[in-house]
Amino acid sequence: MTEKIIAPKGFLFAGISASIKKNPRKDLGLIFAEKDASAAAVFTTNLFQAAPVVISKQRIQKGKARAILVNSGNANAGLGKKGVISALKTSKSLAKRLAINESSILLASTGVIGEPFPDQKIIAGIPELVAGLSPDRFNDFEESIMTTDTRKKISYRSIKIKGKPVKLIGFAKGAGMIQPLMATMLGFVLTDAQIAPAILRKILKESAEASFNRLTIDGDTSTNDTLFALASGAGGARISPASPGFQQFCEALRAVCLELAAMIAADGEGASRWYYVQVRGAGTKSDAEKIARRIANSPLVKTAISAADPNWGRVIAAAGIAGPKFDVNKTGVYLLGSRGKPRLQIFKSGARSASYQGIEKEKQAVKILQESGFKIVFEAGKGKFDCEIVTCDFTEQYVRINADYRS
Amino acid sequence: MTEKIIAPKGFLFAGISASIKKNPRKDLGLIFAEKDASAAAVFTTNLFQAAPVVISKQRIQKGKARAILVNSGNANAGLGKKGVISALKTSKSLAKRLAINESSILLASTGVIGEPFPDQKIIAGIPELVAGLSPDRFNDFEESIMTTDTRKKISYRSIKIKGKPVKLIGFAKGAGMIQPLMATMLGFVLTDAQIAPAILRKILKESAEASFNRLTIDGDTSTNDTLFALASGAGGARISPASPGFQQFCEALRAVCLELAAMIAADGEGASRWYYVQVRGAGTKSDAEKIARRIANSPLVKTAISAADPNWGRVIAAAGIAGPKFDVNKTGVYLLGSRGKPRLQIFKSGARSASYQGIEKEKQAVKILQESGFKIVFEAGKGKFDCEIVTCDFTEQYVRINADYRS
Repeated sequence: MTEKIIAPKGFLFAGISASIKKNPRKDLGLIFAEKDASAAAVFTTNLFQAAPVVISKQRIQKGKARAILVNSGNANAGLGKKGVISALKTSKSLAKRLAINESSILLASTGVIGEPFPDQKIIAGIPELVAGLSPDRFNDFEESIMTTDTRKKISYRSIKIKGKPVKLIGFAKGAGMIQPLMATMLGFVLTDAQIAPAILRKILKESAEASFNRLTIDGDTSTNDTLFALASGAGGARISPASPGFQQFCEALRAVCLELAAMIAADGEGASRWYYVQVRGAGTKSDAEKIARRIANSPLVKTAISAADPNWGRVIAAAGIAGPKFDVNKTGVYLLGSRGKPRLQIFKSGARSASYQGIEKEKQAVKILQESGFKIVFEAGKGKFDCEIVTCDFTEQYVRINADYRS
Repeated sequence: MTEKIIAPKGFLFAGISASIKKNPRKDLGLIFAEKDASAAAVFTTNLFQAAPVVISKQRIQKGKARAILVNSGNANAGLGKKGVISALKTSKSLAKRLAINESSILLASTGVIGEPFPDQKIIAGIPELVAGLSPDRFNDFEESIMTTDTRKKISYRSIKIKGKPVKLIGFAKGAGMIQPLMATMLGFVLTDAQIAPAILRKILKESAEASFNRLTIDGDTSTNDTLFALASGAGGARISPASPGFQQFCEALRAVCLELAAMIAADGEGASRWYYVQVRGAGTKSDAEKIARRIANSPLVKTAISAADPNWGRVIAAAGIAGPKFDVNKTGVYLLGSRGKPRLQIFKSGARSASYQGIEKEKQAVKILQESGFKIVFEAGKGKFDCEIVTCDFTEQYVRINADYRS
């Protein structure tokens, strides 16, 4: 993306330091829609939900929003009613400052769980935050939501629908989901197209399913995971399933989500590589996903990958305890290089492949595993359902980062 | 156990080096019953089952056995029919040498998956193995089944039932299940009591359920996991559910299994601590287990524990995505020290406990987490079902061991 980013029309951004984090880094961000925007969201499925999730879930139901207030440094989770009361204080203060309805403010938080939520610091920061709002300050916003992220994660698309320009911008935080602050992923997708909330919700859900929900690092889903979408309509293009360009818009939104998810996978501080796990030929969609997740989350597979060790025994062992039944004599495993080739069959019809013998073949396998973006494919030999997951390896650094937090 | 170990009557042992492993270490072991022994087993639930598992599963059905042949250094897994043919060659050779029925020989293997099985090396070692059989050589046997284990795992109990002595001895291998050779656990329990195969099977299954099946290190269950029990009857005591002493015998067998499981958990080369995860008050037995396993297998929890960091947010986040539904407002988390005290309530009624505030309380929590054997208790607040799992932490060493294998 060498293209200069011009944010979708109708949105203003800000990001400041409100001293929530110990280090003087930006930790409070705001997205403001100049008029009521269509709004949709996908939330964590964890039973424990942070206060901002509880509140936003309710507010998003009307399908409209004016602002999203985000903080990093404190998750506002595990605090019971106190957390909700604290969060409401911040949105009340922001509503007053922006002169908008409090219920049109969405909230997101990321950081440590169980520490008292610094509502006063946030309230104190709101005047500066609002004063700084500008269509250009999306980089400040992105910075304010970062925790252990080592890079900004912004994705941008500009398309034309019926001659009218449509812009999409996406922001995300999450360092390979392996970051010590609680494995939280936050995502924000904005567009200036005009689209009904129900349609936006449907597209967002499908896009999340194909991107963020296909990303697994350590199998943990946080109390705070949230993906928001706002459509301002300020660009003039109307999007509806019946209109031409609908598919094009869906693809652009999905592309933004996919790019953000790949940025998250690639930004694992403790990961040396990211890769795909694909399951082919499972009996049901759910079976395909169960097997793929089991392989992707196996610490034994992850540690082998970190050494570029084609220890395929660990792959089949993980598949064999995933739950779904299959005939092992029909299973196979192959590797695909990061550019889709070479294709190296390792295991076939329930046994080490006749074509995978000798040190030279193993060297080929090692070479494939050395570069991010390769694919481990498990063939279940049962049906026609596939599933692909993006994941990353486990390194000593992973343990160091996650152990050293707070200690 | 300062008591001198005298093996149960009716068994002979041997363990030698057959050059299966690269280093000159013992890698071929044999347990021989002088007469037909009652036999029972528990096998891995992995769909991919190693050749010795496939064969032994069939042979154990008649409830009698004369010998168990075990090798380390090669798992004989992932080889399809070839692996089964190789395994059968070794048991045929042993049957001839011992002049017993081939179908009365049980098999177990542990080691790398997918490498050709060295049947000729094993066959070449059988004469020396058989020649060395002795009631005292159980240490040699234990040595021959070790892979990355840093210590021998032998458990011993001697009891009296109706005035007659009953001895039980147990052997195990498995280094915290985190060992690079494929996370295999093998266990062998022998007794000189006289007991019907069906009863032995029932007791063994219950004991495994309460011990080895409550042990989880990284969530992976291998292609080779096997637990065998043999009862020679040579001691003279008869055990049946109707007879006095039955409960005593069951408890002794369970104690042997528990001790072996604890030895495995404690022998994680890559683990710095082992600990319990207990779930209380789940809606069903299965729910209790699902939540406990999810917490125990969470890499974020494991890495926090390795730094003795009471990061309880990770515990509730893991519980919240385990699957079973519960009311978060009724949940709690507390820690129990390794000697059952102190009891430190951290999370209560869905929020940080009012009693857990300030740096002093956190220091207490850190202290509890510094010593192996502590307990993390999650209260689901839903029903009356509990589950307890033994596990260990993740350290940088874990990754190093599992990554460096074969590389």
